Amino acid sequence: MNRVRASAPQLAGLVPYDPKYLPARAFLSANENPRDVDAEVRELISRRIASVPLNRYPDPLANGLRDMIAEANGLDRSCVLLGNGGDELLFDLALAWGGPGRTCLNFPPTFSVYAANARLTNTAVVDIARREDFSIDEEATFERLAVGDIDYVVVASPNNPTGLRAPQDFLERLLDATDALVMVDEAYFEFSRSTVRPLLATHENLVILRTFSKAFSLAGVRLGYILANPGVINEFLKVRQPYSVDAVSQAVGEVVYEHRARFEPGIREIIEERGRVMEALRTTVGVRPYPSDSNWILFNMEDAGAAWASLYENGVLVRDFSATPLLEGCLRVTIGTPEQNDEFIRLLRAFVAERGQKRAQAARA
Amino acid sequence: MNRVRASAPQLAGLVPYDPKYLPARAFLSANENPRDVDAEVRELISRRIASVPLNRYPDPLANGLRDMIAEANGLDRSCVLLGNGGDELLFDLALAWGGPGRTCLNFPPTFSVYAANARLTNTAVVDIARREDFSIDEEATFERLAVGDIDYVVVASPNNPTGLRAPQDFLERLLDATDALVMVDEAYFEFSRSTVRPLLATHENLVILRTFSKAFSLAGVRLGYILANPGVINEFLKVRQPYSVDAVSQAVGEVVYEHRARFEPGIREIIEERGRVMEALRTTVGVRPYPSDSNWILFNMEDAGAAWASLYENGVLVRDFSATPLLEGCLRVTIGTPEQNDEFIRLLRAFVAERGQKRAQAARA
Repeated sequence: MNRVRASAPQLAGLVPYDPKYLPARAFLSANENPRDVDAEVRELISRRIASVPLNRYPDPLANGLRDMIAEANGLDRSCVLLGNGGDELLFDLALAWGGPGRTCLNFPPTFSVYAANARLTNTAVVDIARREDFSIDEEATFERLAVGDIDYVVVASPNNPTGLRAPQDFLERLLDATDALVMVDEAYFEFSRSTVRPLLATHENLVILRTFSKAFSLAGVRLGYILANPGVINEFLKVRQPYSVDAVSQAVGEVVYEHRARFEPGIREIIEERGRVMEALRTTVGVRPYPSDSNWILFNMEDAGAAWASLYENGVLVRDFSATPLLEGCLRVTIGTPEQNDEFIRLLRAFVAERGQKRAQAARA
Repeated sequence: MNRVRASAPQLAGLVPYDPKYLPARAFLSANENPRDVDAEVRELISRRIASVPLNRYPDPLANGLRDMIAEANGLDRSCVLLGNGGDELLFDLALAWGGPGRTCLNFPPTFSVYAANARLTNTAVVDIARREDFSIDEEATFERLAVGDIDYVVVASPNNPTGLRAPQDFLERLLDATDALVMVDEAYFEFSRSTVRPLLATHENLVILRTFSKAFSLAGVRLGYILANPGVINEFLKVRQPYSVDAVSQAVGEVVYEHRARFEPGIREIIEERGRVMEALRTTVGVRPYPSDSNWILFNMEDAGAAWASLYENGVLVRDFSATPLLEGCLRVTIGTPEQNDEFIRLLRAFVAERGQKRAQAARA
């Protein structure tokens, strides 16, 4: 037939996700690690891949990598599950604990994928808007949870794109206040040095999400994992794609995880540079940066859209949230190499200075 | 809290997918290509991977590979979409065209993932059971479609695990009889030499699924793709995971697709061996093979479960469907290398002979 019936109603009006990648010299838009794996690790990866049979299906559970992660976290293998990036596991959460007639709790502004996954799975979303400083409105949260209809909660810690981690005592009280499954998205925990991992022992309703995409420089390889109690992992097993983590990615992940100590200097550099960029933003006229526990800084300024364009014209791509609800006037800059950070600061200050001059001229005219 | 509320009700009683991998000398259970990519292609892959930035997110749409596939199929880029194996795209079908209140048409016995995806997305499944020879009951199909409530249809051609492709004229009449989206799963079309690709020009409701896992020896790498009209592709874009195809897999896929002519001799060998194994099965007492257009043969025999165990004890793993509804008494053997096929035939015949001897002894006793 030369027509096709409409797709599912929840897709109407939906716009496919656009990561807004544009060609640039400095990519400071996607919270990637600015440094690739080093040459020595690269060589080890290359050798490992050479021995992977490509014609055979991968180990569905990536047990090699699973055991390494389990051991590093002092957990049993049955408490760990790998996914095709954190993205797949976020979707699996909505699929397993959401669905028609079920409800999730969300803290906007936050990672937009949480709400998008809820929509795709016909899960109702209850939004508790963050306060003006982007901290979670704890009172409103506990009040809403007391209704008893929330099936799952997602809290990013640190919160993307705003920057700070959730207070540890809040997370613990949250886990105590509900039997909903609570996912703490720790995608950036290597930069915050803070985890709720110890709470797994006492909280059956906790699931922690982590990724190889940030600290471990593997955004291109797509590896994420969750830590949870076996009963929770088992529900994820029911909904996941059996072969979602390919054999080559497993091999790459094993090499990188074996050598994860080598990524420490890079992580420390990012944390130090974050302090330097923060200070530079604080001392730039009209720019208000938000504090960050992560590998980026969100900042608010007048003419943010024009600032984004000016940076981009000069080869530096940052993320433009200036027209995003709850984030009006904000840009997000990923911490890059010292050289990239210098260039970003130089260009942003040039934009601010030029704008100031134009205004002064306009005032004189 | 040290308990967690139950996951979504459709997961109750669900058992996680088990590919039933077991250690063996000859893996003839998963319809993989028995030969890995050749050493020369492997070397090219290795070199290509070395230049892939691992720390950057992959191109969400895998446009390099997408353009190659589009060109080879005489289509525009907008008619092609890559996925993390065919599996992801099968799930996306259920997510985009299924869901609560929607219905899919299924032709069991067939690939079990179709019904599993429907269940996970709360899609109702209407089963039209195949005839005894595993051909589709065309009359029942058209009668059921006339009700008008079917939202999507999945037809595997060739059908896994039974073996034959669907008749071309049936597929065309099916596409004319409904405005439901019809997915023709051509995962094994390189072995059947038959495709509905020409019908894309006249049928907006057609989507074709293909994979790199079989003919191209890349089951470990997870690459599948669909061909469809842009309006259909756009709905898949709305539901897919944006980064599901990692950067390394894209690189591997590009090298293999560039050199796809090199896989032709291997495909021809499998087709020839299929004839030889078929003849051997036909001439084995008590074994009834079903005709096949693919890289496996389904066969029926008495004591199929015991035969499976005997083969496995001797290092040859085939797929056991002997206790699967509609496939009782059936095993499926993937066509392997000539040596593997010889061993399989030798072991199966030994089992049959031994069983015959035991029976004769029992009759004398």
